[in-house]
Amino acid sequence: GALRTIARTKLRIGMIPADGVGREVLPAARAALEALGSSIPKTEFLDLDAGFEYFTKKGVALPEETVSAMKNDLDCALFGAVSSPSHRVVGYSSPIVALRKAMDLYSNIRPVKSVSKTPGERPSIDMVIVRENTECLYIKEETMSLGPNGKEARATRLITERASRRIGQMAFETALARGSSSLLTIVHKSNVLSVTDGLFRETVRGVPALPGVDGKYDAIKVEEQLVDSMVYRMFREPQVFDVAVAPNMYGDIISDAAAALVGSLGLVPSVNAGDTFVMGEPVHGSAPDIVGRGIANPLAAIRSAALMLVHLGYDGPAKKLDEAVDSVLRRGDVLTPDLGGSCTTDQVTAAVLKEL
Amino acid sequence: GALRTIARTKLRIGMIPADGVGREVLPAARAALEALGSSIPKTEFLDLDAGFEYFTKKGVALPEETVSAMKNDLDCALFGAVSSPSHRVVGYSSPIVALRKAMDLYSNIRPVKSVSKTPGERPSIDMVIVRENTECLYIKEETMSLGPNGKEARATRLITERASRRIGQMAFETALARGSSSLLTIVHKSNVLSVTDGLFRETVRGVPALPGVDGKYDAIKVEEQLVDSMVYRMFREPQVFDVAVAPNMYGDIISDAAAALVGSLGLVPSVNAGDTFVMGEPVHGSAPDIVGRGIANPLAAIRSAALMLVHLGYDGPAKKLDEAVDSVLRRGDVLTPDLGGSCTTDQVTAAVLKEL
Ligand SMILES: CC(C)[C@H](C(=O)O)[C@@H](O)C(=O)O
Ligand SMILES: CC(C)[C@H](C(=O)O)[C@@H](O)C(=O)O
Repeated sequence: GALRTIARTKLRIGMIPADGVGREVLPAARAALEALGSSIPKTEFLDLDAGFEYFTKKGVALPEETVSAMKNDLDCALFGAVSSPSHRVVGYSSPIVALRKAMDLYSNIRPVKSVSKTPGERPSIDMVIVRENTECLYIKEETMSLGPNGKEARATRLITERASRRIGQMAFETALARGSSSLLTIVHKSNVLSVTDGLFRETVRGVPALPGVDGKYDAIKVEEQLVDSMVYRMFREPQVFDVAVAPNMYGDIISDAAAALVGSLGLVPSVNAGDTFVMGEPVHGSAPDIVGRGIANPLAAIRSAALMLVHLGYDGPAKKLDEAVDSVLRRGDVLTPDLGGSCTTDQVTAAVLKEL
Repeated sequence: GALRTIARTKLRIGMIPADGVGREVLPAARAALEALGSSIPKTEFLDLDAGFEYFTKKGVALPEETVSAMKNDLDCALFGAVSSPSHRVVGYSSPIVALRKAMDLYSNIRPVKSVSKTPGERPSIDMVIVRENTECLYIKEETMSLGPNGKEARATRLITERASRRIGQMAFETALARGSSSLLTIVHKSNVLSVTDGLFRETVRGVPALPGVDGKYDAIKVEEQLVDSMVYRMFREPQVFDVAVAPNMYGDIISDAAAALVGSLGLVPSVNAGDTFVMGEPVHGSAPDIVGRGIANPLAAIRSAALMLVHLGYDGPAKKLDEAVDSVLRRGDVLTPDLGGSCTTDQVTAAVLKEL
């Protein structure tokens, strides 16, 4: 992407902890980035507001200043996590969904890889989920009406050729970066949604024939899975998958499935990437059950910072962060409770920093 | 339900093998029903057409005669499986989706239970998925238009109060039948779809307060899970779930997740149940990879026949079938390849019949 080719003297990073454990893991990601020292441009951090908690205080979940800072003053951002109210709250709408749309962060990239205990052992899962991030049911066009038998609610699911093409391109590029003979799995449900998912699948399949592609994707094997059987197969034979591309909601669901396979949501990073901005975000949520106890797993947030660096073109420093996380996992003596350990967020973060 | 209270001198059963291994497993279910002898009313089987193969020959996937026979001449039916064309086929639309709608089979009930090898051992998963079966994205209202950036496809997701209420009632009844202190998990994604999934969740939650319920569900514990975290938790701690109720598409996905947990889709039965008709259906598909080799697992079809009998009020004979299947599984020496065995459909069927 274009973001990789920009020369920067500073790296201006927006920090949006939002809710719950988002506030506990973002400082870990910041510490990890700072520990990289001069191997990346000088970092500048800017704290930004968003979230359900902010909404309850100020009546808005995503303040305009946050979006305008991201648009005008920042190179990238890290997002924490957002709480879902347990009952419908009038006027509240998920700030993460709004942010993805406002910044046109059209791809949500979620690498899921198990760390093997013995060197050389094949990881049981090693895949990247490339999730469309701006449309599908996430456009939130919903209506309520009164029919003869009571209330009737409708939501619109939008799938466009444009969004399917650009996420398809991102998926083929992701597959190519993993080796020219990668496997790309298109996830859909076109046996029911022949028009919307039909458009998604045909558009993604059409990417290798686009002008200018010049055969570079020719060695990538393309297959398809219906979303239900994708979930089934991910649990039966996860090792066969490589890159999977999916419309927004299927991507949401299969990334949680993948996270279950590596042992904890607390390990899975993501970036929300567009053509002009990238935002790292751990896949886990705000975890109300453990909030405030200092035991949230910081590794997904640190990995999200690394993934953000890759998208900005700093592959070397990103690799350092990933390797530090991997060795902490491989050693296995400093882990948070979600991984069976008894250490705190701070202890795990310190262990990562020590490896750097 | 009302179906349980009807006195019958005959049991008229429609057989709709449809496609692929559907044709190989339905005879097993028939043999099992016939082996029940006089413990159920005299069975009469009527073969009915439907499916993608039928469509390619006759241009229609669900002939009117099939629907009218079900409406007028039959007590119940068994459905095999349906193939999905690998490319969009003009005029073709899934007959199983159409059948569920035409017969108003509004609930799809999918019990998923692992068989413990040692007696007394707690099964690692023992849950029932109660899936709404007539609406959500399955109404197939899709449109295609041309926007400034190319094609735009839209699908409507419909959630009504009426359908949510009746599936909610079915879910509470299912929970009650499993013991008054069961757990009912409502699966939704109301953090994004606050109107449609908001209506689903509120309507299901409202069932215990309906007139005439008179506190009978008071001891049932109700909780909620977002669909993504439901999939995650089903893989991390499946033993906590009991009854789950979900809109159509989430139900589709989580039932494949559950099937993965018991080792094979070839084990999971379902019924499509309405107020006046019930149709058994194995959850597995047409399995084009193994079709014609005589090795399809007949156990899901046999269990679907048993589940159909339960819904017709023949609990004793249904239990006999289930116990026969369970002992074949527990013995473990006569299994099809999906379960690691090397036996054929016929051999497994014979083993079940021997247990009866
Ligand atoms: C919080 C929620 C809106 C979000 C989503 O569904 O996209 C989350 O589940 C995720 O995966 O990032
Ligand atoms: C074949 C398909 C239309 C069907 C569905 O999605 O309902 C199947 O996956 C199922 O679960 O019965």
